[in-house]
Amino acid sequence: MRLLVEDEIPEGETRGRPRQLTKRSIVQAAARIRPEEFSLSKLADVLGVSSQSLYHYFPSIKSIKDAIADEIAQKIPMIDTGLPWRAYVSEMILQYRSWLNQNDYPIARNAVYDGIAIFRIAGRRSEILLRRFDNFISVFLRDGFTLDQTVEIWITVQNFLRRSDLHRAEATGMASAWSDLQADIAESEEGQYSALEVLLETPCPEMNALYLQITNILIDGISARYGVD
Amino acid sequence: MRLLVEDEIPEGETRGRPRQLTKRSIVQAAARIRPEEFSLSKLADVLGVSSQSLYHYFPSIKSIKDAIADEIAQKIPMIDTGLPWRAYVSEMILQYRSWLNQNDYPIARNAVYDGIAIFRIAGRRSEILLRRFDNFISVFLRDGFTLDQTVEIWITVQNFLRRSDLHRAEATGMASAWSDLQADIAESEEGQYSALEVLLETPCPEMNALYLQITNILIDGISARYGVD
Repeated sequence: MRLLVEDEIPEGETRGRPRQLTKRSIVQAAARIRPEEFSLSKLADVLGVSSQSLYHYFPSIKSIKDAIADEIAQKIPMIDTGLPWRAYVSEMILQYRSWLNQNDYPIARNAVYDGIAIFRIAGRRSEILLRRFDNFISVFLRDGFTLDQTVEIWITVQNFLRRSDLHRAEATGMASAWSDLQADIAESEEGQYSALEVLLETPCPEMNALYLQITNILIDGISARYGVD
Repeated sequence: MRLLVEDEIPEGETRGRPRQLTKRSIVQAAARIRPEEFSLSKLADVLGVSSQSLYHYFPSIKSIKDAIADEIAQKIPMIDTGLPWRAYVSEMILQYRSWLNQNDYPIARNAVYDGIAIFRIAGRRSEILLRRFDNFISVFLRDGFTLDQTVEIWITVQNFLRRSDLHRAEATGMASAWSDLQADIAESEEGQYSALEVLLETPCPEMNALYLQITNILIDGISARYGVD
């Protein structure tokens, strides 16, 4: 088994020549296959190569997902440590969402959830994640938080970033959930869900505003909990 | 295809007689198989039946995961609506964690993530989820929040509950992440991650305290954001 950490062939050489496999060309092809159709033999078909040649680069589907998790982590924008902590957290969350909306890899969703850990990616030391954490600590210490508080806040923000569906929701993402809810209540006996009946007289929340609001709840909660403006 | 909503055979009759399949006995057997080994034929082996007989109950792995998501949702403790909103949210989160720690189903983890939606479970109308949401709205309206705010808070809390790794983390859950971090920094050049070096002189956070702290950040954030005590 051969493990590649970097591409061995310059990127330009892969264009139009799918048999010149690189780690990157495989990952990019993998990203275009729908998760429910994904297999190593399907991927080999798409690339026009044999399954055997893929195994040289990636011995398992998991190793492909890990590579995608790496790529995702490396491309997430780095935040300016000159910002005050509130703006720093806000940028961290909003830029992650914006980035993800343009660079989502359906096949890697669970891998990203599993693979990007709070301190490591896919169980391995990650310069990019250590750098992010180090920057984060320096911003919070500078702005008056203690070390213990800073760790708690890092875990809180990471937990929010890693698992949230909201990141991937489109601007109209609440509309279908809201109309499902209306249908469910229409099927219920009148008065069975009286608070919901009242609620449904208000308009469906708009997803971008909702996302911003949740981000602000998080930031205000940090401020209130630790008594730091 | 036959769809069973309730068990058709009393629970007692299944003991020691694995060929007397019920939806529940299948779900319980499925919960004991490790996710990486899971398949319908493996499940049939464990139950001592043919794959064909399983298809009468569950036509796909997805349908088994959905059934587990249903079962999980139904067993999550219902919270007393007499509590003030802060205690209500806190109980909702802490009881969910406590329940999950005793009733986790490894095979269904992603199904639970995918399947328990903010208003529905596995895409279907769910009395239990409508009841929870209706209760939640009534508590928050009673305590002075507006309808719009209540929806935002419901999405915030659901988002936290659905995706958090922290729910499943054991009391010592941070220890291995912390020692990985120490190893990663030991491998780095001195001064490369100077804030992390300072941080690692503090003890590893304790998971239960950390979880409580994040819950409190959420609650304080709601209070601060909406100006409601």
